[in-house]
Amino acid sequence: MAHPDWEAPQGRVLPMKLYDAAMPAPNPRRVRIFLAEKGLSVPLVPVSLAAGEHKQDEHRARNSLGQVPVLELDDGTAISETISICRYLEALQPQPPLFGTTPKEIGLIDMWIRRVEQQIGAHVGHVWINAHPYTERYAKTHGIQRYADFGDYSRGRALGGMTWLDREIAGRDYIAGDSYSMADIAALSIVDFAAFIGIEMPEDCAGLRAWHARVSARPSAQA
Amino acid sequence: MAHPDWEAPQGRVLPMKLYDAAMPAPNPRRVRIFLAEKGLSVPLVPVSLAAGEHKQDEHRARNSLGQVPVLELDDGTAISETISICRYLEALQPQPPLFGTTPKEIGLIDMWIRRVEQQIGAHVGHVWINAHPYTERYAKTHGIQRYADFGDYSRGRALGGMTWLDREIAGRDYIAGDSYSMADIAALSIVDFAAFIGIEMPEDCAGLRAWHARVSARPSAQA
Repeated sequence: MAHPDWEAPQGRVLPMKLYDAAMPAPNPRRVRIFLAEKGLSVPLVPVSLAAGEHKQDEHRARNSLGQVPVLELDDGTAISETISICRYLEALQPQPPLFGTTPKEIGLIDMWIRRVEQQIGAHVGHVWINAHPYTERYAKTHGIQRYADFGDYSRGRALGGMTWLDREIAGRDYIAGDSYSMADIAALSIVDFAAFIGIEMPEDCAGLRAWHARVSARPSAQA
Repeated sequence: MAHPDWEAPQGRVLPMKLYDAAMPAPNPRRVRIFLAEKGLSVPLVPVSLAAGEHKQDEHRARNSLGQVPVLELDDGTAISETISICRYLEALQPQPPLFGTTPKEIGLIDMWIRRVEQQIGAHVGHVWINAHPYTERYAKTHGIQRYADFGDYSRGRALGGMTWLDREIAGRDYIAGDSYSMADIAALSIVDFAAFIGIEMPEDCAGLRAWHARVSARPSAQA
């Protein structure tokens, strides 16, 4: 499901299943990047979003919201929500830490995950759902109301969020400080998905662009 | 800033400051509830939202987004985002655990926090910003564009989220399982704020209403 050149890490294989979806879906990719950074491997079960498999009963039994990814443990427990899945995996294998180890790191990394999601990710999502041509037919077929004006406005908010983030990370290498963390994984998947739907990082965001090149150069970014 | 009948817990006083705002603001309340459940006390510094203090330079130096709450540590570090502040405090004082202790609890509680925020909280926020009379004047004064149709639609989504949650929690006492957790604090603050802006739990959500009565009966709910 990942980039064709990507090789799954040869590390510890966990006794669970990850219900996964192909690029450009940003959320499943986050978990794959996280696994690559941890050197962990989980058997992937593809769910075809194009075929609507995520909205069918079989998948809704795992996640009633019909979303991917879902991590199914060997006792049958299903964990949804990208960040929550990664947090579970971090608790299972703390090294290398991607959510921080001291109370201050833990607080600040969580803050940056949330800021990136809210100041950029949420707006990108609104553009995608309300104003992107790719989702128009799906919305019509499924009787989903779209608010095109709100979608267009959200495009400006997403770009504004990128400009804000560019200022905030001035002088540091990673989103939450001097070390790579889950906040970088969250931001990378959002920025790449934004570009996929036509919302590119503004030209004058030199720091953000340098950060993007830095994290994209890691082998995990191919996941 | 809390309910007039509420008494701050007489526990450990932490060497930090919490920039706080009065009811009905749901986010500062979450941290106060969390502190009450932990038996912790932090000096509160009131920030008047009505006077726009959160958008002034002094507060923006703590949080460039101009939001409350912000926890300022004794080394000057400012942690924003409600859940992140609570996660920091949990790392500092793990007992009683409100974010889980086993990997599975940690994953599931985080999942429920996020689900409650996304399936109910985000929609309530859209109603508040786009379609509520209280924010109309503020939006006009500050040149904020409102999308009333989208706001009205979000009201239905918020109610739908409550109905969904009612089904999901059937047979258990708390949002994430058999124990009270941060997910209950997140959900309580959202449901109470929703009611404040006129989005009441649907009549037929008996389980959700019973849960609400259960968590509202805890002394911490007065915070």
